[in-house]
Amino acid sequence: MVKRSPHFSTLSQADLFVEIPRRVESFRKKNPHVHLVNLSIGDTSQPLIPPIHEALVKEAHQLGTREGYKGYGPEQGTQELREAIAQIVYRHQFSSEEIFISDGAKCDIGRLQLLFASCSSVAVQDPVYPAYVDTSLLSGKKIHLLPCLKENGFLPDVEKIPSVDLLFLSSPNNPTDAVFTRDELTYLVRWAHKEGTIIIFDAAYASYITDPTLPHSIYEIEGAKEVAIEVGSFSKSAGFTGVRLGWSVVPKELCYEEGTPLLRDWDRLVSAFYNGSSRISQKGGIAALTKEGLEGLSKQIGYYQENAQILKRALSEKGYAVYGGHHTPFLWVDFNKRNSWDLFSQFLEQAHLILIPGRGFGPSGEGFMRVSGFGHREEIFKGIERLSCISLQSL
Amino acid sequence: MVKRSPHFSTLSQADLFVEIPRRVESFRKKNPHVHLVNLSIGDTSQPLIPPIHEALVKEAHQLGTREGYKGYGPEQGTQELREAIAQIVYRHQFSSEEIFISDGAKCDIGRLQLLFASCSSVAVQDPVYPAYVDTSLLSGKKIHLLPCLKENGFLPDVEKIPSVDLLFLSSPNNPTDAVFTRDELTYLVRWAHKEGTIIIFDAAYASYITDPTLPHSIYEIEGAKEVAIEVGSFSKSAGFTGVRLGWSVVPKELCYEEGTPLLRDWDRLVSAFYNGSSRISQKGGIAALTKEGLEGLSKQIGYYQENAQILKRALSEKGYAVYGGHHTPFLWVDFNKRNSWDLFSQFLEQAHLILIPGRGFGPSGEGFMRVSGFGHREEIFKGIERLSCISLQSL
Repeated sequence: MVKRSPHFSTLSQADLFVEIPRRVESFRKKNPHVHLVNLSIGDTSQPLIPPIHEALVKEAHQLGTREGYKGYGPEQGTQELREAIAQIVYRHQFSSEEIFISDGAKCDIGRLQLLFASCSSVAVQDPVYPAYVDTSLLSGKKIHLLPCLKENGFLPDVEKIPSVDLLFLSSPNNPTDAVFTRDELTYLVRWAHKEGTIIIFDAAYASYITDPTLPHSIYEIEGAKEVAIEVGSFSKSAGFTGVRLGWSVVPKELCYEEGTPLLRDWDRLVSAFYNGSSRISQKGGIAALTKEGLEGLSKQIGYYQENAQILKRALSEKGYAVYGGHHTPFLWVDFNKRNSWDLFSQFLEQAHLILIPGRGFGPSGEGFMRVSGFGHREEIFKGIERLSCISLQSL
Repeated sequence: MVKRSPHFSTLSQADLFVEIPRRVESFRKKNPHVHLVNLSIGDTSQPLIPPIHEALVKEAHQLGTREGYKGYGPEQGTQELREAIAQIVYRHQFSSEEIFISDGAKCDIGRLQLLFASCSSVAVQDPVYPAYVDTSLLSGKKIHLLPCLKENGFLPDVEKIPSVDLLFLSSPNNPTDAVFTRDELTYLVRWAHKEGTIIIFDAAYASYITDPTLPHSIYEIEGAKEVAIEVGSFSKSAGFTGVRLGWSVVPKELCYEEGTPLLRDWDRLVSAFYNGSSRISQKGGIAALTKEGLEGLSKQIGYYQENAQILKRALSEKGYAVYGGHHTPFLWVDFNKRNSWDLFSQFLEQAHLILIPGRGFGPSGEGFMRVSGFGHREEIFKGIERLSCISLQSL
């Protein structure tokens, strides 16, 4: 008789990104004439920029020609894209063999779990994007949450991190917008060396960092190659949330305790569990890394950042305690320990506004709401209007 | 200190699809002026048909417009494609909620492993596409190989299958071309009911079956919904090996021994480990399932089948003992227990021809070579010429 994986029972709650649409749908059924304004989305809204969409169209067209048709590519990605990432994103710090192309950061996080013994212990920021916790639990790992509170600038107290096998770091962090400084990362890299911990560094929002003194990649820190894997994504930097493209970096220096290089296992694991990213998406990724692509994307990122600033000013003027909006388009609004699912319902019912309850990102997210600047500018202004319909005191 | 997953040490050999290019590359370096003919590829070679490539181009174009841009889709796939598969592939046997869109059958097979306790036992055909064995081992499962020999028409002896939790069935099977008949599958479905086994049925080559009496899907068998998951793919039916699109079917009737429906866990697992298939690829999938798409694809499949027939006639005339070429474009050539890696080297060095050693698909593949009709017609004729350079007796 077939046994269910015992790990399903360790998942504590419904998937946040399933629960929200479910509740919104239920509200819509009861209130079919209400127009809802959505400030919840963690998704890009601006069209692909011309050099990228032209590259996608060109490759899609090529696949319909005898000369241009190609089938399977390497599971690890095309040489062209691996090299472009090694050279442009990482300024020649890596060879192309250390870069693995994927269909996005979440998928990489899931597959990476399989590199490690299932009894491994994992530490993750709390609150944080739920994929680290869910894929860790479903692969049998033990989770330690690292509270990221207002008092610590929404970063974990690095001196209190317990001994663990794996440490997930998300910087900038979704939903809190917090970024590790160079000093903090330097401390953590040294700590990982001492403890024998592997860091999995998620840099999906790195291109939103504007302060040049802040690290965009863990590999800006000396000694990181021996202790860290990095995951990157075209989703938020190039609007590829529906196109699907990301990458992982596994440096050749990185080894398990018994000395085997992770690179060899990762290469094998990717071959067994993955079959390469879409050729069309990969050509889009190459276009995103050209001079023209990078310039266009920088403007698009600026648009989302401006959205976040407009929202932040409006919310602050209305008396909300607002954090974030600097290194991601996410604002992290403090409701002083109030139940965030109750707040979700109140905003939905009283202001017809969709926000994300902080609790959905972990227990330390309780009392906060995530407000997103990823929408169209008009939606941002409509959201601000809706906020005027609801008094902060009435919440 | 970080522990390597203990399961890597259970993998017995290098990945076949890594080892072959490695050996070919090494030959090419020593013989830079030799033109190699490739009859090894399990990959499609014909361009995407017009309705499909037009749909890909259109969606890629849309993503560059304000009106047409879309970001994340549901992790489980767009409603439109889920419905198209439920209606057209499965003739309304399923609701769209039971169909999950993916980036290909191999990736689904990998993720499906995580539904089941890691100590589960698994039976697989031998020889078979290596992904079942590799993903089973890497997720900690115990493997029983089911020898598929000439004496049994390259199908397992169904009455000798041991008690296992999971049974992978690949039909038509790559590399042997063997298909389960309706009677055999009926026996296996009843057996699975009795044993409490879950069947994972890989129908990636189903569209190559021409005999209408043979089942294209396990769900043509009564009672299969309670015991079977099916995996399907656009790779071989529509030339999507580089576009990446597949699906899985998890019927709502299917439960673990303690009664939980698998559907609920699969939905959650897909949300945790996957982030949806490329929107562009999904539009291509929809085009593939239109009347025009299906007609065009049927012609393309006919081309590959004709390749296989041409090859089969030529090989038979030269005295080779050739099986297969009916339900896949693969021929399974019997070399009477000879070492197939030695044969690989001989064909490469003496005839400048790349074939696949049967041993790469499992121990019972020893003594056979897989010859593929997936190439261009000219390549097939060149391959036949090359076979004339080498005498069967000299091998």
